[in-house]
Amino acid sequence: MVDGPERNAVLTRRDLLAGGAGLLVAAPAVLAGATADLPPSMARPGSGFGVYGQPSPFEKHTARAIAANRDVPGNGVSWTPLHDLEGTITPSGLHFERHHSGVPEIDPSQHRLALHGRVGKPLVWTVADVLRYPRVSRQLFIECGGNSNSLWNAEPRQTSAGALHGLASCSEWTGVPLRLLLEEAGVARGATWLIAEGADAGGLHLSVPLSKARDDCLLALFQNGERLRPEQGYPMRLIVPGWEGVTHVKWLHRLELASEPAMSRFETGRYTDLLPSGKARQFSFVIEPKSVITNPSPGQLLRAKGVYQISGLAWSGRGAVRRVEVSADGGKTWVEAALDGPVQRQCFTRFRIAWAWRGQSAVLKSRVTDETGATQPERAALVAERGRHGEFHFNGINAWAVDEDGEVSHVYA
Amino acid sequence: MVDGPERNAVLTRRDLLAGGAGLLVAAPAVLAGATADLPPSMARPGSGFGVYGQPSPFEKHTARAIAANRDVPGNGVSWTPLHDLEGTITPSGLHFERHHSGVPEIDPSQHRLALHGRVGKPLVWTVADVLRYPRVSRQLFIECGGNSNSLWNAEPRQTSAGALHGLASCSEWTGVPLRLLLEEAGVARGATWLIAEGADAGGLHLSVPLSKARDDCLLALFQNGERLRPEQGYPMRLIVPGWEGVTHVKWLHRLELASEPAMSRFETGRYTDLLPSGKARQFSFVIEPKSVITNPSPGQLLRAKGVYQISGLAWSGRGAVRRVEVSADGGKTWVEAALDGPVQRQCFTRFRIAWAWRGQSAVLKSRVTDETGATQPERAALVAERGRHGEFHFNGINAWAVDEDGEVSHVYA
Repeated sequence: MVDGPERNAVLTRRDLLAGGAGLLVAAPAVLAGATADLPPSMARPGSGFGVYGQPSPFEKHTARAIAANRDVPGNGVSWTPLHDLEGTITPSGLHFERHHSGVPEIDPSQHRLALHGRVGKPLVWTVADVLRYPRVSRQLFIECGGNSNSLWNAEPRQTSAGALHGLASCSEWTGVPLRLLLEEAGVARGATWLIAEGADAGGLHLSVPLSKARDDCLLALFQNGERLRPEQGYPMRLIVPGWEGVTHVKWLHRLELASEPAMSRFETGRYTDLLPSGKARQFSFVIEPKSVITNPSPGQLLRAKGVYQISGLAWSGRGAVRRVEVSADGGKTWVEAALDGPVQRQCFTRFRIAWAWRGQSAVLKSRVTDETGATQPERAALVAERGRHGEFHFNGINAWAVDEDGEVSHVYA
Repeated sequence: MVDGPERNAVLTRRDLLAGGAGLLVAAPAVLAGATADLPPSMARPGSGFGVYGQPSPFEKHTARAIAANRDVPGNGVSWTPLHDLEGTITPSGLHFERHHSGVPEIDPSQHRLALHGRVGKPLVWTVADVLRYPRVSRQLFIECGGNSNSLWNAEPRQTSAGALHGLASCSEWTGVPLRLLLEEAGVARGATWLIAEGADAGGLHLSVPLSKARDDCLLALFQNGERLRPEQGYPMRLIVPGWEGVTHVKWLHRLELASEPAMSRFETGRYTDLLPSGKARQFSFVIEPKSVITNPSPGQLLRAKGVYQISGLAWSGRGAVRRVEVSADGGKTWVEAALDGPVQRQCFTRFRIAWAWRGQSAVLKSRVTDETGATQPERAALVAERGRHGEFHFNGINAWAVDEDGEVSHVYA
């Protein structure tokens, strides 16, 4: 079974054991002398200690790409450079941004969180008050409902994996289970929705069913160990595990229990899906299973023939990733990839699989199935179902073409 | 069984179910008006997007404490502020540092890694070569063998939990299994040790048994998703899961297979333990089970009576944390804490437990047991065994006293 490379398929464990690769992974040079030359960094002491470290100046290209609306101050997005990153944790400085009115500067000593509406007793907390409650930590992705929206276009946009799919990031969030604050205020009769509002200039507010708020929502104060970054909602943010990003209200200052949703702009005009029938999907909160190959991906070049590790990210708002399959022949054959563990619910999962590139053209795809059995659909099937008016909730299978020169591009295939 | 608070014990699940707390967690104010006042941040658009985000200016105090040796440029440490952090991931900018010759600036395009000595064929890799190999990601702690060394002193040092125990941090590391590079060069007869050298001015080098190198060591290129930070070994670092920090050689430029250890300064004069018998322990690589309560901890103040969540970090180089117990009466009684999951091997584990503070004085302790059954010893037992010449490998139980004013201090108890 050494036909893996010939049939342009990714390599199964059996292919690898049978020596199916038949190609060097890499081609290091043979060392000329008895030992290595001493590099210049060994000639003098290095620099001293820092209170807060920064990336190497040689890594300045690892940055968020920005698309800001010139007509509306603070309206726009910045994308996580998924193609430059590894593992599953997104550094906080590279977590994607989607702001509608910019990043407010908030003095935590002045910040208040109110809980009112259909409650037993309306309450208001300071940040110090909130820090008194029991906390819990979870590693969770956040994906903007508008992520990957260019894939609704008729032609594939030629840009990096990050600029296509990087309105998705993953952090360790620590906060207070929202349930505890709701219990303290008391839930009054008829309350079925939680309306959450941020302290930005637009007062962005969203409605979340109370059942979800009680189940697993967090009032987050910490991201990746430290306090939230300003652009991630400092000093406090609503975390709604597995649901689209707009529900994770940043700079949270007001929670209201109500019997109806607020019907705000962001749950009526935006983040809804106009279907071919003329009807629109609304309150489509849950992120459907999705995956993307980050390596190799557009802008990267295969410089030599040999065995490559294809790797990428998979996630689902419905729970844990159960399986990721990868194809090197545009979807004709699929092989299951390895998953870096532990696999966590509503969290990025890194998949990896070997592939022998002998200079042939190829089309790489990945396809995730989650623990509920839901599978990422082919793009064509998703477009047929939803039409092309969509701007949101794209989770179709993504395709990268590798040509005979080792160049990688975005294709619909 | 509502005696938890009275007997000055932490609260079991049964205490909590029985309402044993009997005290508010916090005391939020009742909201005066029908809705909250609008904060000033809602009066104008906020700031725009950034290519690489930074912490809030209001969190400048969350920083590494530095102790540098004025006589030796670049020699010193900086501590992770464990008392200001949550969860288990240490932000890369706050990962502890221990440098002997400062932080070299290395241009990755010029960097080379050599593997020579008792090999089949000596090889040299560029960074681009190394990036061609299969990678794997793991969340792992690193602890300096000199962490917590002030606890060998006769008197407890009064400073923060971070400045006492913060030469320990935890990241998601991604790299190439070292085994793959060893296989490519070939291991020659008689090779039993791997000597790893960094490209800093001191050429810091350490010896690791070849069996460990083949088992689970990584050549790491990424930390918390992005490329390594300069002070963490950019562009590549040896990761030795569960072993003391000095073995995780930074700015790695040379690996040598040998039949004997190098007997370098850092494995003879330093990182060894002079015992009361006059003999010294050497090659004591594995980090023994250890835990520390980060909240509450010295420098923090309990401002009001009520239920608090005691939380902290536990880890063991021998594997996974199995159990953490917490005492509020100086070690007379212990209750098992909850662990944030998933618990990972050789990784920080966050523990949490409730405690009712009614204004009494108390002594808080935590005690971890790992999957091998090894338990963190009382400080007195550790000192009796090792004597007071030690500067390294302190893993005794730590004690914080809470006085009747809610002030927290470091005690030996």
